[in-house]
Amino acid sequence: MAMLVNGLPAEVVSARDRGLSYGDGVFRTMQLRDGRPRLWRWQYARLADDAARLSLQLPDEQLLLDELAALGRGHALAVGKITLTRGAGARGYAMAAAGAPTRIVAAAPWQGYPEEQGRDGVHVRWCELKLSLQPRLAGIKHLNRLESVLARSEWDDPAIQEGLLLDQDGWLAEGTMSNVYLLRDRQVLTPRLDRCGVNGAVRDWLTENVSQFGLEFIESRLSAADLIDADAVFLSNSLMGLWPVARLGDRVWTPSPLLQTLRQALLQQA
Amino acid sequence: MAMLVNGLPAEVVSARDRGLSYGDGVFRTMQLRDGRPRLWRWQYARLADDAARLSLQLPDEQLLLDELAALGRGHALAVGKITLTRGAGARGYAMAAAGAPTRIVAAAPWQGYPEEQGRDGVHVRWCELKLSLQPRLAGIKHLNRLESVLARSEWDDPAIQEGLLLDQDGWLAEGTMSNVYLLRDRQVLTPRLDRCGVNGAVRDWLTENVSQFGLEFIESRLSAADLIDADAVFLSNSLMGLWPVARLGDRVWTPSPLLQTLRQALLQQA
Repeated sequence: MAMLVNGLPAEVVSARDRGLSYGDGVFRTMQLRDGRPRLWRWQYARLADDAARLSLQLPDEQLLLDELAALGRGHALAVGKITLTRGAGARGYAMAAAGAPTRIVAAAPWQGYPEEQGRDGVHVRWCELKLSLQPRLAGIKHLNRLESVLARSEWDDPAIQEGLLLDQDGWLAEGTMSNVYLLRDRQVLTPRLDRCGVNGAVRDWLTENVSQFGLEFIESRLSAADLIDADAVFLSNSLMGLWPVARLGDRVWTPSPLLQTLRQALLQQA
Repeated sequence: MAMLVNGLPAEVVSARDRGLSYGDGVFRTMQLRDGRPRLWRWQYARLADDAARLSLQLPDEQLLLDELAALGRGHALAVGKITLTRGAGARGYAMAAAGAPTRIVAAAPWQGYPEEQGRDGVHVRWCELKLSLQPRLAGIKHLNRLESVLARSEWDDPAIQEGLLLDQDGWLAEGTMSNVYLLRDRQVLTPRLDRCGVNGAVRDWLTENVSQFGLEFIESRLSAADLIDADAVFLSNSLMGLWPVARLGDRVWTPSPLLQTLRQALLQQA
């Protein structure tokens, strides 16, 4: 598959791009169906928010849709990725040193996840790394992802599909590549992302949609003990959709019909 | 001037480089004199430490020296930069997804700093951003520099040459592009870099060399009040050398002959 850099077919960027020098940019990853990005309304809103918080220029929505379509059309499924950086720049951290922003739109072959991970649930572990707290960056899907890299490198057992992260204060934060949720009675509880973590598009979709299923969406401070005590635990990201957690160490959760209902609803969302 | 990417003349890197996707890499900046990097022993030791902590492959020392020489020879002064990343990789945070590492060696024209900033001192300010605490990344000059970018963008008054940063717990940490030191009696006090901050090569040089001047080098937790109370305050990085701080808000420090002695000694270090 292929890539467009500022609208032109290319596989490279300037070695002076601030995305490389400082991680000075943001990105989104999404599923493409015949070139159409799923959950686009939530993806674009999130991209716009993230760009605004870092004072990055936001490309026109139709331009991004056209570029994704050009790359993904004809492929039933593909992985789409949009990266925006502050562009190549002179030396120095000041934003004013940057030139024109860089826009990278890419599509990669869909590799997907085994169906049983969504149906039967996944095995997860705790990560030792504790996420640092930075309100100025919390929630943003920016290019400073070394904590995710280090956390994901704590295990290589293929039977473990995700690692869960606490923050430096010991509160539940997220998975290395997913948001995390607890089901308790009729509440969907998820960590507030005001001090760390990445706000995924599916998380926003859930915020808007769980009430259709008689559920209440609540952001709060949650502990590891809250998670263990939950009726069910699940993860989300834009590629996996919803994954129930089947096991964490000795704790085993039985399948939740409610989670499957939610998962099917997400799968049917355009 | 020019650049070598994995030893070949180039100005671009793969748009799939993990240095861009995740900031998964480290860098060093240095002064070149006719292609020879100053403070090389400290620079290379620091690069080796940083690479080891992120499990990045360390290039052979002579290879780096040869590449810096090839780019900088014939120029009395230049800015040298070495960037090492985990290379282009498949999607996903796992380090195992990476291919061959990327080595970028670059030289840029020397722009330098006005002599009076080193002689008479600089004006600094406090930054509002508080550095997050992450022991796993503390001290490393890695490519996740969004906090530095945001901090440096808090002011654009050219009369202010540097911003000072506290960490999330309120302790003094560093400048946006420099390490910071307090002179108190015969002690050089500097923040411990065990939870945040970047360890510069000049800082290591000072660790080894201040005793020659009857000074004791001490790493500790320091407060904003400690800084205000200090006999003198100074900053360091590999391009500016040592800068005395002349003013912070209403606090004015008189020139310190001892600092000038230290500064001259650093200038004479190969």
